[in-house]
Amino acid sequence: MIIVMRPFASDAEIEAVTALIASMRLASHVSRGSERTIVGVVGISEDKETLLAQFAQLEGVESVVPISRSYKLVSREARGDRTIVRLANGAAFGGGELVIAAGPCSVESRDQVNLTADAVARAGAKLLRGGAFKPRTSPYAFQGLGEEGLKYLREAADRTNLAVVTEVLDTRDVELVARYADVLQIGARNMQNFGLLREVGGARMPVLLKRGLSATIEEWLMAAEYVYGAGSHDIVLCERGIRSYDPQTRNLLDLAVVPLLLSLTHLPVIVDPSHGTGVRTLVLPMSLAAIAAGADGLLVEVHPNPAAAFSDGPQSLTLPNFSDLMARLAPIADAVGRSLPAPALAV
Amino acid sequence: MIIVMRPFASDAEIEAVTALIASMRLASHVSRGSERTIVGVVGISEDKETLLAQFAQLEGVESVVPISRSYKLVSREARGDRTIVRLANGAAFGGGELVIAAGPCSVESRDQVNLTADAVARAGAKLLRGGAFKPRTSPYAFQGLGEEGLKYLREAADRTNLAVVTEVLDTRDVELVARYADVLQIGARNMQNFGLLREVGGARMPVLLKRGLSATIEEWLMAAEYVYGAGSHDIVLCERGIRSYDPQTRNLLDLAVVPLLLSLTHLPVIVDPSHGTGVRTLVLPMSLAAIAAGADGLLVEVHPNPAAAFSDGPQSLTLPNFSDLMARLAPIADAVGRSLPAPALAV
Amino acid sequence: MIIVMRPFASDAEIEAVTALIASMRLASHVSRGSERTIVGVVGISEDKETLLAQFAQLEGVESVVPISRSYKLVSREARGDRTIVRLANGAAFGGGELVIAAGPCSVESRDQVNLTADAVARAGAKLLRGGAFKPRTSPYAFQGLGEEGLKYLREAADRTNLAVVTEVLDTRDVELVARYADVLQIGARNMQNFGLLREVGGARMPVLLKRGLSATIEEWLMAAEYVYGAGSHDIVLCERGIRSYDPQTRNLLDLAVVPLLLSLTHLPVIVDPSHGTGVRTLVLPMSLAAIAAGADGLLVEVHPNPAAAFSDGPQSLTLPNFSDLMARLAPIADAVGRSLPAPALAV
Amino acid sequence: MIIVMRPFASDAEIEAVTALIASMRLASHVSRGSERTIVGVVGISEDKETLLAQFAQLEGVESVVPISRSYKLVSREARGDRTIVRLANGAAFGGGELVIAAGPCSVESRDQVNLTADAVARAGAKLLRGGAFKPRTSPYAFQGLGEEGLKYLREAADRTNLAVVTEVLDTRDVELVARYADVLQIGARNMQNFGLLREVGGARMPVLLKRGLSATIEEWLMAAEYVYGAGSHDIVLCERGIRSYDPQTRNLLDLAVVPLLLSLTHLPVIVDPSHGTGVRTLVLPMSLAAIAAGADGLLVEVHPNPAAAFSDGPQSLTLPNFSDLMARLAPIADAVGRSLPAPALAV
Repeated sequence: MIIVMRPFASDAEIEAVTALIASMRLASHVSRGSERTIVGVVGISEDKETLLAQFAQLEGVESVVPISRSYKLVSREARGDRTIVRLANGAAFGGGELVIAAGPCSVESRDQVNLTADAVARAGAKLLRGGAFKPRTSPYAFQGLGEEGLKYLREAADRTNLAVVTEVLDTRDVELVARYADVLQIGARNMQNFGLLREVGGARMPVLLKRGLSATIEEWLMAAEYVYGAGSHDIVLCERGIRSYDPQTRNLLDLAVVPLLLSLTHLPVIVDPSHGTGVRTLVLPMSLAAIAAGADGLLVEVHPNPAAAFSDGPQSLTLPNFSDLMARLAPIADAVGRSLPAPALAV
Repeated sequence: MIIVMRPFASDAEIEAVTALIASMRLASHVSRGSERTIVGVVGISEDKETLLAQFAQLEGVESVVPISRSYKLVSREARGDRTIVRLANGAAFGGGELVIAAGPCSVESRDQVNLTADAVARAGAKLLRGGAFKPRTSPYAFQGLGEEGLKYLREAADRTNLAVVTEVLDTRDVELVARYADVLQIGARNMQNFGLLREVGGARMPVLLKRGLSATIEEWLMAAEYVYGAGSHDIVLCERGIRSYDPQTRNLLDLAVVPLLLSLTHLPVIVDPSHGTGVRTLVLPMSLAAIAAGADGLLVEVHPNPAAAFSDGPQSLTLPNFSDLMARLAPIADAVGRSLPAPALAV
Repeated sequence: MIIVMRPFASDAEIEAVTALIASMRLASHVSRGSERTIVGVVGISEDKETLLAQFAQLEGVESVVPISRSYKLVSREARGDRTIVRLANGAAFGGGELVIAAGPCSVESRDQVNLTADAVARAGAKLLRGGAFKPRTSPYAFQGLGEEGLKYLREAADRTNLAVVTEVLDTRDVELVARYADVLQIGARNMQNFGLLREVGGARMPVLLKRGLSATIEEWLMAAEYVYGAGSHDIVLCERGIRSYDPQTRNLLDLAVVPLLLSLTHLPVIVDPSHGTGVRTLVLPMSLAAIAAGADGLLVEVHPNPAAAFSDGPQSLTLPNFSDLMARLAPIADAVGRSLPAPALAV
Repeated sequence: MIIVMRPFASDAEIEAVTALIASMRLASHVSRGSERTIVGVVGISEDKETLLAQFAQLEGVESVVPISRSYKLVSREARGDRTIVRLANGAAFGGGELVIAAGPCSVESRDQVNLTADAVARAGAKLLRGGAFKPRTSPYAFQGLGEEGLKYLREAADRTNLAVVTEVLDTRDVELVARYADVLQIGARNMQNFGLLREVGGARMPVLLKRGLSATIEEWLMAAEYVYGAGSHDIVLCERGIRSYDPQTRNLLDLAVVPLLLSLTHLPVIVDPSHGTGVRTLVLPMSLAAIAAGADGLLVEVHPNPAAAFSDGPQSLTLPNFSDLMARLAPIADAVGRSLPAPALAV
């Protein structure tokens, strides 16, 4: 931590800073410049935010600059190699093979799920996605089928050798959802629902952590740190677009986070081009772009009949759209030294 | 709902739209312009989002424009008069008297709470604020004292005739927090934690609903609609600043929402200038500005010794700062036809 | 400037940094922490950005933290007192009296300008605003009357003892506009039109510098530094709202910049609540809020018949609206120790 | 244009709307719903913004929804095919071959330009980029070599069969820059410098139009409409990132605009991954992603010695970095059915 004094801070002010540092049993280095004095603090191990707060309030202090990153466990430096999140059906996020998760926004019926699972498995997806508990802006919107929806997902996935990723919204539902899912999804709106992060972390199973609606990368990695610290180490980060001022897309897909995260953390990173754009025709090009940028996989909304979808129809691919996407992905994967897995279900 | 067709949409495309409207047992009006055709839909009562989704996907449709507002219960039109949220100690949000809630970010000790409660009650606050469960970006930061903190708040408030407003983070804690609090606070990070909104709504007690980190006004009012629909009708909206690109302030305080909300909803609106700026010296001017803009009250962080605060010290007022704020507020309140209450505690 | 090394940066990497510092004839301080080493640079006087760039690229460097502010001439520390921008008609931005500039978005006709000037002068405005050269998003929108419009402004202002503030868009027009205006306005879209900043600075007359559409405070003050350095020292900063994601208002009015700027610069600060909200009914409350926050004045759009305005009608006050605003402002001004001037024109 | 009345608007209010429409000699369609009435306006040909403004102010009107797009000349519908911008040296933006423009941020010396031109031409670039007039946030930063810099660019480009793209900042410099450049660049800060747009349009030569710092797609296309309408029809749009709240990158590169623009306009679209990220290590992955998303080319900063660059060093590729980028681009181009041109200069 570096404490930057105001221009012409008095000696007494500087001494107050070094005295506070000493009272915390930390060492300091004072560096007097022509215009300003700077005080470095060495040996910090406690809660940084609290420390920052205390120094920032002393007279004569202009700003306090944190040096250490706040996240430890999920940082790139914390492990020698990258985390590969391996699922029972052979899917492995972060390895050479890309992992594609596909399925409807909401689970609507057994037929809908089965139809989708068959198609996406044949096309090469390894995970079936679908919401049984839905976070909806409006209380009047369809809120999901609950446990019934989870059953449909499990059945369809088992039949097609897909893994299930589905969202859990409430700390009280973690145990229930964990019984049916292979991967617990934490949605964008819950990225800083810290109780949920801890509870999901306590499930000690693979977690898909979406970026919050306007989260910084640091906040996102801190959310991952909560999950990791609570016990679930197999975390996949998922970029899904952030709030934008331009109404032409639903969100603003921030693909630069892909290579950036790969330099900051050992966790795998995937992209959701469906929520990331909200526009069906943009899903294909942004999927290609995501893989070109280095993503370890995709989370894509696919629906047998988007025009009748209970939610997110306009951004859902049809079943043929999805097959086409997988075909178009293959040469891009190849161009960046990755591959697509063999279909989970024989065609 | 209005469906805007693309330029030169074919008759068949237009008929597909009107046929879908008819199949929903709704009426349509077709309006053919020189360049485009527009189809109005009349009589919608179901989930609007789903309908939007379906039409947006038909061939030849350029965009679908919602006409009705999504929120009903909290809309200005839903009641003839404004909601006044009245508390047992006489505080009334939305009336002629401003309501000031003040206290520390985190409850740290019985002494800290008592000292603060005494001072803010003497200065004219009607509510004591303080966090017993803290949503912290970092898992390594102080997470709050839990029920012990709630007890300190209740004791101090009872002694000083203040009401208690405190945050609840987890659906499982609502019942516990409700035992100690007069007003349940839903924090910015949980504005779209829909399970929590419903659970807090089910408590049927006054609720303080903070704006989400990047929430639109529509999303915020929809969150209020969840709480209202679940049973708690005494909801106070609290602007606390939104994400900004300029690091000079912690958040960007959006005061225009105050008069805007007063035109859109019957609920009272207050402002949190502490989180809204993150800078102590900005709390006073932005408090004055909030009241001048028409706010029904303030939520202010006050700490007996901000330099030693466990959280948010840099934005906390000292006890003398708070007295000064109240003195400076009085003429502004007067200028906009409002008043400050007599102190809860005699001096 | 502080150079933060990566954890475990090698001695050779640190030496490369200090060697580069030495080669620039600057002094360095090396501070070795438990985890990282930090190098302070002392005595910098040249272009800071270039220096930052060079160090950031050395091996082992994690980040470079600038310490000195980039703006010098306009910084609070550069003068002992505040700048008061005095105009020939007695208006003085930054003094005890608030300065209100009012008038139409676009100059449309001699009658429109005269009617408006009479009314706003009677109500207490000291400046007449109006655009003769209009920056319009669409090439098909009304682009202004040009010099004819300037003449109308000048005539009306002379007759009513108002000063004229009007926008200049092009370096080639500065001399022309300066012949008619008392204050040259640089609009939001031109805040980083550096040639225009210099040319306007060279006119050595009062300047109104609006904040750019998404400008940081630092960028804005740097723009003022261009103008100041080129010769015009009488600069008034004008907050006019920034880009927002919420379509309910045209821009997001950032009132916290008012007290923040007053702490960072000696220049006066005013607020444009018309562009800042884009909604007529929000202009009054946000005007009151701006003055409560400490603004030195307002820039308000007023039109005799907003429904027929060539531009910005929805955010323009009517003449009676403006009189009402001035009446409502008086007690707020009084509450913050300011006053409104006596009307320029006797009623 | 559609005019949405408030719930329960009176008949008189609706008639005032239709009367105003009739007074403009336009036709209207009134559609009465259960809750609201909607009025469609047919036959609009004049300035839309003015019309919107007028209706929005009538009593009983809730909102006015524009239907037609504001841009005409650059819209997809305006031409049967896509514009291909062809330069004298054979580069063609918008064709099957990708066009890569590369070079330093600032022209610093003849040697620097020559060295760079040789290397990028050998690697397959078709344009040399470099700034002779630099828009710098700080007046104390290097402002460019002016005409001397233009000469260096021209000489180096002629020798290596590259075309020159360089920025023009001031209306007074258009003629000068046009003498040396093949493509006139309008920078992000000048995207709404409408005088410059018209002047550059009047030069009737190829134009590179960068997206403004926080421009919407609509605003950007309107800026292109200015240039197009003024006479220059060969316009290349360049995404360069927008303002973001996360300090980890300089800007937020918005790649979804690539496919979106390709659906909205007939103009070619390229991407600047250097300004778009501000981080050298992100330039390669985001270049690959841009091409995968469908971009027609790239604008990349390359410097023989980034650590000594006068500007933008941290985001500049070295000469070997650039060769590597071109090698990595080839298979991605191939995967999306595009190709890289043969090097302008034999190796």
